[in-house]
Amino acid sequence: MKRRIAILGSTGSIGTQALEVVQQHSGLFEAYVLTAGRKADLLIEQALRFVPRYVVIADESRYREVSEALSKLPITVMTGKQALTEVVCLPEVDLVLAAMVGFSGLLPTYAAVKSGKNIALANKETLVAAGALITALAGKSGSGIYPVDSEHSAIFQCLAGENPAWVEKLILTASGGPFRGMKREHLQRVTSQEALRHPNWCMGNKVTIDSASMMNKGLEVIEASWLFSIPPERIDIVIHPQSIIHSLVQFTDGSVKAQLGLPDMRLPIQYALGYPDRLPSEFPRFSFAGCRELTFEEPDRQLFRNLQLAYDALHTGGTMPCIMNAANEVVVEEFLKDRIRFMDMPAIIEEVMGKASFVKDPGLEDLEAADMEARSLARGIVGKGMR
Amino acid sequence: MKRRIAILGSTGSIGTQALEVVQQHSGLFEAYVLTAGRKADLLIEQALRFVPRYVVIADESRYREVSEALSKLPITVMTGKQALTEVVCLPEVDLVLAAMVGFSGLLPTYAAVKSGKNIALANKETLVAAGALITALAGKSGSGIYPVDSEHSAIFQCLAGENPAWVEKLILTASGGPFRGMKREHLQRVTSQEALRHPNWCMGNKVTIDSASMMNKGLEVIEASWLFSIPPERIDIVIHPQSIIHSLVQFTDGSVKAQLGLPDMRLPIQYALGYPDRLPSEFPRFSFAGCRELTFEEPDRQLFRNLQLAYDALHTGGTMPCIMNAANEVVVEEFLKDRIRFMDMPAIIEEVMGKASFVKDPGLEDLEAADMEARSLARGIVGKGMR
Repeated sequence: MKRRIAILGSTGSIGTQALEVVQQHSGLFEAYVLTAGRKADLLIEQALRFVPRYVVIADESRYREVSEALSKLPITVMTGKQALTEVVCLPEVDLVLAAMVGFSGLLPTYAAVKSGKNIALANKETLVAAGALITALAGKSGSGIYPVDSEHSAIFQCLAGENPAWVEKLILTASGGPFRGMKREHLQRVTSQEALRHPNWCMGNKVTIDSASMMNKGLEVIEASWLFSIPPERIDIVIHPQSIIHSLVQFTDGSVKAQLGLPDMRLPIQYALGYPDRLPSEFPRFSFAGCRELTFEEPDRQLFRNLQLAYDALHTGGTMPCIMNAANEVVVEEFLKDRIRFMDMPAIIEEVMGKASFVKDPGLEDLEAADMEARSLARGIVGKGMR
Repeated sequence: MKRRIAILGSTGSIGTQALEVVQQHSGLFEAYVLTAGRKADLLIEQALRFVPRYVVIADESRYREVSEALSKLPITVMTGKQALTEVVCLPEVDLVLAAMVGFSGLLPTYAAVKSGKNIALANKETLVAAGALITALAGKSGSGIYPVDSEHSAIFQCLAGENPAWVEKLILTASGGPFRGMKREHLQRVTSQEALRHPNWCMGNKVTIDSASMMNKGLEVIEASWLFSIPPERIDIVIHPQSIIHSLVQFTDGSVKAQLGLPDMRLPIQYALGYPDRLPSEFPRFSFAGCRELTFEEPDRQLFRNLQLAYDALHTGGTMPCIMNAANEVVVEEFLKDRIRFMDMPAIIEEVMGKASFVKDPGLEDLEAADMEARSLARGIVGKGMR
C-alpha cells in the first residue's frame, strides 16, 4: 500500500521538491494532503496534478478561489489555521512532511506528533522553539521524527546501525554563506539582494538569509541537540564552503562517519519520506572528478554573532530558543524589506533575548506567548531605530 | 565472558597493535593464542606479558628457544605450519585475527572459516587468492568476516544499518604512496629505501612496498569485491593524499557515506575485534583544525600498472588473482633485496600472469599449485634478468 503523505507547505521550496520525489515514486507515495499559506495559484496547480484527498489554503481570503478551481475534483478544500491541525491527524495519513517556514509550523506539527504520526521534519523552528515539548510528546506517542535538513539527514544517515550511546560529537558543516571571510566594515553594508545569493543551495528566502547570517547554523545546532539528544558542548560547527560533506558524527572509538553528496535537497527529502528504506534515484551523482578539494575553516563567532546567540539560548533552555527564533523571524523579514541592516539582526535578537520574559519549563501556551512577546519586542526595537 | 582471540601473526605490525587494543580492553578480550613465523624474541616477550593459553612459533628451528623461555608458564608451545591450523580451530577460540602476511595466511584462515570461527581479517591475500572459496565456505559455516584493512573497515562501518542491495558503488581511497605524481623516468630509478618511506601509514615492509607500487590498492579492490559482493566495475579508486577519508560507499539514492579518521590502524583493529560493538578509545582524535584541506586525484593506471593488472585478474577470475598475488610476493621480496627495479615489478607480474596455467574453478590444492607455479615463474624471470 502506498504511504499517504500530508505535505504542510507544499508550495514552498521543500514542498515542491517533495512533490517531485512523490512523483518519481508514485507507486510508493501518495500526496494525500497538500497545504499552503497564501500561494493559491501554485496550490491549485499542484492539486490538479496530484489530486490529493485534502487541500488546505491557510489564508482564508484565498479559499473561494481554490475551492472553485478544484470543485470538479474529489478534493476536500479547507481553510484556516485550525484546518492544518485537523488534516495532519486524519487516520489515513501515514507521514507528515512539516515543511512550513517559521514558528507557524509548530502547531500543526505538534498536533501530528500528538496523534502519533511519523514526521519528516523540515520545519526546524518546531524543535528550536519547542524541542523539549515535542521530543517528550514523540516519546509518548511513538512518533518517529525523520530530519529533512541536509545536515541532520547526514547525521541521521551516519547513525544508521549505530548505538546512540557511541556518539561522542556531532559536527555540523556550514557553507559559510555568501559573506564568508568578509570583513566587519563590508558586512555592515551588505544588502538583502546580496544575502539572497547563496553560493551552493537553492532555498527559500528565510533560510537563505539565515544562512548568510549563520543563524541557520545556530538553529540547526539547537535542532540537532533535540533530535539526537546531544548537549551543545558536543556539537561542533565547521565551515566547509563546497557543501559536499553535509555533516559528520564522531564516535567514542574516534571513528568519524560523514555523509556526502551534491547539494540537492531532494536527496534528504526522499530519505525522510522513504525511511527506513533507501529508494533509488536519478539525481546527479557526486564525483571527486568534479570536486578535487574539500576545505574546512573555523566559523567566526565574533563576527557572525548569531551562532553564539544560538549556543547561549540552548544553554539557557526554557523559552529562550523560542524567543531567539521569534526575534530572528522578525529581523529577517525587516532585513528582506531593507528596513534594517545586516549587522542589526544579531544586535536586535540579543536585545530581545535580554528583555523578554523567561519561562523555564514552558508549555505550548507559554511558547506562543513567548513568541508573541519576542516579536513585539523586536518590532519595537526596529521601529525605534527607524525614527 | 571475555572474547578469546587467536592472533595469527602477533609479532607483525597488525599483531602488535592488536595486542595494544587487547590490553586496553583487558576486561573484554583475552589473547588466547599467539602465533609468529620467525620472530621468537618478540613472541616470547608477548607471551610473558599476555600469558596466552597457546603459542605457536611456525619456524621449527626456533621452537626450543620459545618453549624453554615459557616453560614456567601454563602455556602450550607448538611449532610448524600444521599447528597454526590446529590452534585456530580450538573450541575455546571466539575470534581469529588473521594478521599473517602473504599467501601463507591462507591455510590457517581457511581452517578457521571452515570451523565457523569469526575472522578479523587483516591478511588480504586470503580473499585475493581464494575469495570464491572462502566466501562460499563462510556462507556454509556461518563465519563472520570483519575487515581490518582501514579501507575495508571504512566501508564496513559505512554499511552498518544499510541494506547491501542499496550499494551502488564502493570508492576506495589511496594515499598514492611516496611516489605519487612522479614521472616515469624518475620512477624507474627509485630504491627500496625510498619506497619504504610511506607518507601517512606505519606498516610492515611488504604492504609498504605494495602501497608504493599501488599493488596494495589492487589487492584491496579484489578483497573489497569479495567482502562486499560488488563487481569490479562498481569499485572505484580515488587518490587522497591526506589519508583521512578511509573509503566511501555510494548508495542507489545518490547518497555517499564515508568513514574518516587519523591514519591509525588500532581503530579498524579495535572495530573488528569488538564488532558489532564500538568500544571507547583514547586514540588521538581527528580534527579539521589540523587538516583544513582534503584533496582528491585520479590514479594513473598507465604508470602504476599494478592497479590495472589487479582489475584484469579480478575480471578473469579463477586462479588469476592468486597467480598475480604470488608473483607480486616474489617481486616485492626481490625489490626489497634490490635485485630488481621498481618498474620491473609490474612487468614481471604481467609476464607471469600471461604464462601461468589457469584453472577456472580452483579448489584449495589448485590455488596452492597456482601459487607455487607463479612463484617459480617469477623467480625464473628475475633470475634470467640478473644474468
